[in-house]
Amino acid sequence: MAQEAQAENGSNASPVVFAAVKPWLVVEAPKANDAVQFYKAAFGAEEVNRVNHPKRKAEQELPLVLSAELKLGSSSIVVSDLTDDAPAPVKSAVSGSVFCLETEDVEAAVSKAVAAGAVAEGEISEGEGACCGGRVGRVKDPYGNVWLICSPSKKCADVAA
Amino acid sequence: MAQEAQAENGSNASPVVFAAVKPWLVVEAPKANDAVQFYKAAFGAEEVNRVNHPKRKAEQELPLVLSAELKLGSSSIVVSDLTDDAPAPVKSAVSGSVFCLETEDVEAAVSKAVAAGAVAEGEISEGEGACCGGRVGRVKDPYGNVWLICSPSKKCADVAA
Repeated sequence: MAQEAQAENGSNASPVVFAAVKPWLVVEAPKANDAVQFYKAAFGAEEVNRVNHPKRKAEQELPLVLSAELKLGSSSIVVSDLTDDAPAPVKSAVSGSVFCLETEDVEAAVSKAVAAGAVAEGEISEGEGACCGGRVGRVKDPYGNVWLICSPSKKCADVAA
Repeated sequence: MAQEAQAENGSNASPVVFAAVKPWLVVEAPKANDAVQFYKAAFGAEEVNRVNHPKRKAEQELPLVLSAELKLGSSSIVVSDLTDDAPAPVKSAVSGSVFCLETEDVEAAVSKAVAAGAVAEGEISEGEGACCGGRVGRVKDPYGNVWLICSPSKKCADVAA
């Protein structure tokens, strides 16, 4: 199964093609449904799919969310409830990452997120780097995730020179 | 600045449009360059932009990476070195998330990632949920990030019913 020698370096001639990266956000149960509502209100996300936890349907008023997929621009994110019997990938879902959201109107986007319940962190400033090379604001959502709201970089050529 | 009453709920009539979500991976300095090479080898990522840390260029052989942007399918991820004087967003870049990579050939993708230095965690199995509704493998990369390698779901309608 794809154990060709070329796979040792894996830099070319591989048939593996990925469609996209989908960040998966795990929130303390049963807050995933709230989180979905928040991402709709704060970022204009659109829910495209949801699977509830089958074991919980009869026990609780609010079914736990095994995963809800939200479309956000050209990307998708997935939101899940973290529970004691969550699937293994969910239970150990902690990594070092923040999420950049690129938009032309940073101020409006930050205001909208804050109106929806996010907390603005710091002032909107000039960013550095590939993700946030223009203006960048920063908000923390109610579930502990940090989102950078960035305008597209207009100075990459200068900075890299 | 976009403080209209409608922003209170933020669910409609807003001019805010996001292009995409870019997950930002922060790795212990100076491993970001290694991480970029790893993502190229493991996942076929293509580097589209890099900004080095301006203060470090003269002091160190290997310039620290302020941010490197990698294209991975239709998505972009950003990789940065975490340093004591990193920009604030980078320093507090810890959130609860994993990354789903959707592909038709889960076995080949896991093999390629492992050949490049990732560690497979568990067996490839049937997934549950919106992100990994088909077959799903799981690898941890050398920088602590968990990636789920998933085939597209073919049973969402069944599960949701």
